[in-house]
Amino acid sequence: MSSITTSRGYAIHDTKDYKNFKVIEYPLKKEEADDVTVHVDVCGTCGSDHHTISGGWGPLTHPEYIITGHEIVGKVVQVGPNVKEFKVGDRVGIGAQAGSCGKCKECQNDNENYCSVSPVDTYNGKWPSGDYSQGGYSTHVRAQQKFVFHLPEQITSEDAASILLGKSSREHNLIASVHLFRLCAGITSCSPLFRNNVGQGSKVGVVGLGGLGHYAVLFAVALGAEVTVSIFAKKQCHLPFSPVYPIFEQVFSHSERKKDDALKMGAKHFVTTTGDFAKDHALSLDIIICTASNASLPLNELITCLVPQGKFVWNGMPETDWPALRSQTMAGNGAFIGSSHIGSKAEITRMLQLAADKNIKPWITTRPMKEAAQSIEDVETGRARYRTILIQDIDQ
Amino acid sequence: MSSITTSRGYAIHDTKDYKNFKVIEYPLKKEEADDVTVHVDVCGTCGSDHHTISGGWGPLTHPEYIITGHEIVGKVVQVGPNVKEFKVGDRVGIGAQAGSCGKCKECQNDNENYCSVSPVDTYNGKWPSGDYSQGGYSTHVRAQQKFVFHLPEQITSEDAASILLGKSSREHNLIASVHLFRLCAGITSCSPLFRNNVGQGSKVGVVGLGGLGHYAVLFAVALGAEVTVSIFAKKQCHLPFSPVYPIFEQVFSHSERKKDDALKMGAKHFVTTTGDFAKDHALSLDIIICTASNASLPLNELITCLVPQGKFVWNGMPETDWPALRSQTMAGNGAFIGSSHIGSKAEITRMLQLAADKNIKPWITTRPMKEAAQSIEDVETGRARYRTILIQDIDQ
Repeated sequence: MSSITTSRGYAIHDTKDYKNFKVIEYPLKKEEADDVTVHVDVCGTCGSDHHTISGGWGPLTHPEYIITGHEIVGKVVQVGPNVKEFKVGDRVGIGAQAGSCGKCKECQNDNENYCSVSPVDTYNGKWPSGDYSQGGYSTHVRAQQKFVFHLPEQITSEDAASILLGKSSREHNLIASVHLFRLCAGITSCSPLFRNNVGQGSKVGVVGLGGLGHYAVLFAVALGAEVTVSIFAKKQCHLPFSPVYPIFEQVFSHSERKKDDALKMGAKHFVTTTGDFAKDHALSLDIIICTASNASLPLNELITCLVPQGKFVWNGMPETDWPALRSQTMAGNGAFIGSSHIGSKAEITRMLQLAADKNIKPWITTRPMKEAAQSIEDVETGRARYRTILIQDIDQ
Repeated sequence: MSSITTSRGYAIHDTKDYKNFKVIEYPLKKEEADDVTVHVDVCGTCGSDHHTISGGWGPLTHPEYIITGHEIVGKVVQVGPNVKEFKVGDRVGIGAQAGSCGKCKECQNDNENYCSVSPVDTYNGKWPSGDYSQGGYSTHVRAQQKFVFHLPEQITSEDAASILLGKSSREHNLIASVHLFRLCAGITSCSPLFRNNVGQGSKVGVVGLGGLGHYAVLFAVALGAEVTVSIFAKKQCHLPFSPVYPIFEQVFSHSERKKDDALKMGAKHFVTTTGDFAKDHALSLDIIICTASNASLPLNELITCLVPQGKFVWNGMPETDWPALRSQTMAGNGAFIGSSHIGSKAEITRMLQLAADKNIKPWITTRPMKEAAQSIEDVETGRARYRTILIQDIDQ
């Protein structure tokens, strides 16, 4: 087989025209010894895709175009000479990171997701060679073997084939299973649960119930935690001292629908951030996973819901600063606020095992990849229930 | 002995005239069954005193006056009927908290410093009865027994007497020992070290070298940590993207003096936050204790100096918001930022034992209590080296 050097993908050329996807052909990074080249079968749509193509997270790395997508499942089609873990034909996943230096303290200690020497995002990144990284709304993606993941045995090859061709009547459930391998939303929610020892008896809050949030609920429940889901009226909440947040009727119905879903996912409590919610839940949660991608939320009040030294992990990535904080805000319960960056291979492996053991099924919908614009719009408007998977159609 | 109902103290009557201390007589809180009444022998001056009397932390609780001081050593002169731990004549300490509900989950689990039901600060607070709390720039303070602490056996009664009368030539060192019991600066620095398992091999950063900071260095060193002290040009640093902070010559000399002191206290490294300091120290510290009482510091850069999931504990209490933060800032190393509120009785007991075991001597100066204004000014200007103890003089 001749060496693969190019890919075709759904590209955006202008952040001001960010739903105008056009299929283009472009060069893959030059293959290096540790690289695995994957043919993309399905790719999830992540909030990151929307933030990136709309310019909300800043300018694009490549001067002309961007191909997003970092929740990739596909098949290995080429491997570099150092690759021992994968062979051509293996079904694998790739997440939000495609490379790192491999040598620093972080890379050597299961923290490669925190490599600061040469971390490379799966798309909108740049390799040390100067090549650009492009994502999975495409036919091919190339990544270092450390950032490629085997699919679990529970999914047979036959099932996988039907999923990946998008033809089986069992498609939904099976893709759901494969979709667990999506290495952005799933592991982004799971890593802080693991790193903070969430388990039986833990009290976990989840703020926001979208793609990230629904994973946080599913995994926290699977770990044995008692989960409280909180949602709020995006853009209509005002911080921080108004006693009642102006939540409109429309939002209440939104809230009711999400409440039903949250309880079905295993959450025990559902809270809308109105009135005295913070007083009612003071000092009650060990950790809050905040998946909100909009910074307009009652942060000070939410923090008071944590136990002493509890943690507020804001995994959503708003395009603006968090509401203002000061020592006095945090000293009341000695709480901490931070964020998290995907997860390490060790954590992803643990997540996969957990998903297999507990038969966790994410809630997804599927679309052909040519409907990427619609999928982006679903993320943008919060209509996605709760994650959209794009099925490869460029080859067909 | 007739029941004690009043105290005399150095009061401030106007936050706009906050160095004009006048001795007044005022009522103590009504005695309850768990209360211990202490005659004050010495009282430390804390940054909190300055922030409070100058109105920087907001309006005063009592409509007419405030008596600050919450680093108190004195003798028990009266106990309520439920008090078993103390008897009249005991030499004790009182810190920044004088009361709590005693019944909530926090109070029952060695987190009484995080009681949210009815926590009462030693001064500028209000008891559930409606009585005001006033501090230790005074003859008497009354607190619940949970917030009163025995002094260690290492200090004999004879020594203590000479200290407390302020007459011995050995005064400095002995007061230094007693001063360890100061339950604001000492425990505020110690509690996050304890709660984050700082020990042999830990890498601890300390930002700012004043009262709090010098305790953080002494205790972290005593716990076996490798300590890096960082200071910066207060009010002259600009955040966050200027590559070089405008630090003036005057500050450099300030820096050199503090460097000598930091190394004498046991710190291994000393860093001024100029140029590429953050790059040079990226991902190197397990925890940073930030004692700065001014929010103008290069926060984003300091956070990048933490290891993955490292913690930035901002124990200083600036009067303004922290520099702006966002998820992206914190995701780079998955770090956390928070604060801390003094410490529990269990932690204070542990701190005292540590101080006794390691013979920790804080760096202090002493003044008669009538020089409170000068002591406040030393805190305000950063001239205190590193803590001032006021010696009782109202009775004399």
